Amino acid sequence: MANTLFHAERRIAQRARSLNSSAIREILKLTERPEMISFAGGIPSPASFPLAALRDASARATHASSADAFQYSATEGYAPLREWIAREHSSRQHPVAPSNVLITSGSQQAFDLIGKVLVDPQSAVLVERPSYPGALQSLSLYEPEFVSVQTDEHGMVSKALEYVEPERAALLYLQPNFQNPTGARLPIQRRRKIAEIAQRTRLIVVEDDPYAALAFDGGQSLPTIHSMAPDNVIYLGSFSKVLAPGLRVGYMIVPGALQKKFVQVKQAADLHSSTLSQRIVYESVRGGLLATHVPRLASFYREQCAAMLSALDAHMPEGVHWNVPEGGMFIWLALPPDIDSAALLEDALALNVAFVPGAPFFARDPLHHFLRLSFATVSPQQIDCGIERLAALINAYSRAFTPVFDLDLDR
Amino acid sequence: MANTLFHAERRIAQRARSLNSSAIREILKLTERPEMISFAGGIPSPASFPLAALRDASARATHASSADAFQYSATEGYAPLREWIAREHSSRQHPVAPSNVLITSGSQQAFDLIGKVLVDPQSAVLVERPSYPGALQSLSLYEPEFVSVQTDEHGMVSKALEYVEPERAALLYLQPNFQNPTGARLPIQRRRKIAEIAQRTRLIVVEDDPYAALAFDGGQSLPTIHSMAPDNVIYLGSFSKVLAPGLRVGYMIVPGALQKKFVQVKQAADLHSSTLSQRIVYESVRGGLLATHVPRLASFYREQCAAMLSALDAHMPEGVHWNVPEGGMFIWLALPPDIDSAALLEDALALNVAFVPGAPFFARDPLHHFLRLSFATVSPQQIDCGIERLAALINAYSRAFTPVFDLDLDR
Repeated sequence: MANTLFHAERRIAQRARSLNSSAIREILKLTERPEMISFAGGIPSPASFPLAALRDASARATHASSADAFQYSATEGYAPLREWIAREHSSRQHPVAPSNVLITSGSQQAFDLIGKVLVDPQSAVLVERPSYPGALQSLSLYEPEFVSVQTDEHGMVSKALEYVEPERAALLYLQPNFQNPTGARLPIQRRRKIAEIAQRTRLIVVEDDPYAALAFDGGQSLPTIHSMAPDNVIYLGSFSKVLAPGLRVGYMIVPGALQKKFVQVKQAADLHSSTLSQRIVYESVRGGLLATHVPRLASFYREQCAAMLSALDAHMPEGVHWNVPEGGMFIWLALPPDIDSAALLEDALALNVAFVPGAPFFARDPLHHFLRLSFATVSPQQIDCGIERLAALINAYSRAFTPVFDLDLDR
Repeated sequence: MANTLFHAERRIAQRARSLNSSAIREILKLTERPEMISFAGGIPSPASFPLAALRDASARATHASSADAFQYSATEGYAPLREWIAREHSSRQHPVAPSNVLITSGSQQAFDLIGKVLVDPQSAVLVERPSYPGALQSLSLYEPEFVSVQTDEHGMVSKALEYVEPERAALLYLQPNFQNPTGARLPIQRRRKIAEIAQRTRLIVVEDDPYAALAFDGGQSLPTIHSMAPDNVIYLGSFSKVLAPGLRVGYMIVPGALQKKFVQVKQAADLHSSTLSQRIVYESVRGGLLATHVPRLASFYREQCAAMLSALDAHMPEGVHWNVPEGGMFIWLALPPDIDSAALLEDALALNVAFVPGAPFFARDPLHHFLRLSFATVSPQQIDCGIERLAALINAYSRAFTPVFDLDLDR
């Protein structure tokens, strides 16, 4: 086995730079201890699942008169679900056809399919700084060169795109709404600018939008970049955050010119996504569940977020900064630059508090003084308790790192 | 989009030689017409699904007290299911640990993960001749050089392995039981020989075994190559044929040295397989369903096969040959060498009979006078009717192709 093992070692080492997230994953297995207050998981709160509706939908899907729910099905996905998705994303100016919709095994699979179809070794892949490690990890298997695009508290700085040779890039990957990890929502002007650059330079934009429905204001969501440049955008949607992630049902909306290729690689990857999962999703959403469920979700996460923001305000020492998200599940915290969040994590775990250190969110040249907090799964009381412990720890670190020459020894 | 589209075109063209199976797939969409007698689908009969048990299992899985059935879960798979699989495959000499088991989204996903971990461009991948196109298609994306190993009516000729430099190959791929398409079952002596060669040359064997349970004699199944050389074999199992394919639950049993790598690429591919699907499978099998269901399945397929064999005996002209399978779902038919089965298919479809032409089953240098018949989904009456039509067509082709110099014009 030596020869192939050697090759495998080499390949994994080369390709999977971002797999260092696996090391963190190992650490975070500790977060399964019941006494742990975990702000680490990027998972939705099970309290937010519409369980009764999901159970009803499962019963309907499995008790349909035929055995179809358990049989092989089309690679493209369950036709009624594709039609539903197409309708949801259609506007008068930009109709989406069911043929543009490809069901994927969660959004995660879309990253792999995109790698297969669009990324060659050394392809330039433009990403936010920071970006979502699940996407970086999956795309990195196709050995691209990641190019970070300047990003601020409102997300990608669209003008900065002009300076990274978009016309030579294989694709641009971004999350427009409540980005993981920064929580930023891209303003409409920037969306327009990115759409314009994509059309002008023939850049393919991968618009990954799992958190769209989790807008705290519950108001009209901003138009997607896809709706502005449908021939240049691959849109990724997911039922993981609005229904339940364990079903593993996501989708791509793919420009016509690329459809056939994506169906081919999807077929090679897993033939099709779980027939039953797709039918449960369809049975859940067809009657209009989301019209009542999404506002409930948004209000749930808004209150969770408010609890974390007031805990941060109450406890964090000076020199620590964070964003105030308008939706989603995450707060991105900047520590004083001399504190390494990975080291901090080890001490925090000893205090039964967990978070995700910031380094794996950077495609290259990681910064080490950031960390991501999720407010999704912990109760408000526990949030306050966990943030208080974390703040005390950061305070201790800050004092320990105060440089000696700052002390006025003469006084 | 031109630049990336160009790259995509080139890559698809280079990598996906076996994607010509997609063309056939297009043709076979015609088989969905209700009047079609289709011997084409490689799908199990829905009449064979244990529907009542699956519905009960679904209800139990979704009504468990927690929301866990709908939540994200471990990349490796659902722990109780992995333990069940490990027990099923353990023997006194060769225990299988749950940590060796990785749940996949159908066996199809295993091919993609194997490509990622073990196959580099130009890697030699040893395959049966003919082999399963789903595996060839998936592996071909990683640009190996396929090397066909001599195969006869009992499967791969194990001695022939010695002559294809197994010590230089990335892997050997085979189906030991009721192979798709030939129906061959590999004798125990050949399994031992292949295990021995694998151990001696450090070859990794991918033993793909979806049809193991469909042995018509219902007797003791032959020992797996995996049980003979567990450090050299990646074993692929599936619940698609014994329970239901639409759940998309398969599994790999992976040598310890490769486990971590496969978990990493699985995580990048789709995070994990459907939590609910895995729990439904476990709830189905935990109480011993398969002990009663598998004999029912075997007897169902045995009778279907018998119907097809007697129809072939009754109707086929001389010069047409086929195997007599001991299990599985397929009969592999050799036409007279001057008949192209792809051309035959077009005419057969006009008569509302469908099958799969043989060419896509060959990794290289395809032979065109073979075809695959599935006896899984058509009723015995319809089998007779369809085979009779097909035989009449082949007869007409044979007459048309009889060379002129064979006619004795002087008489």
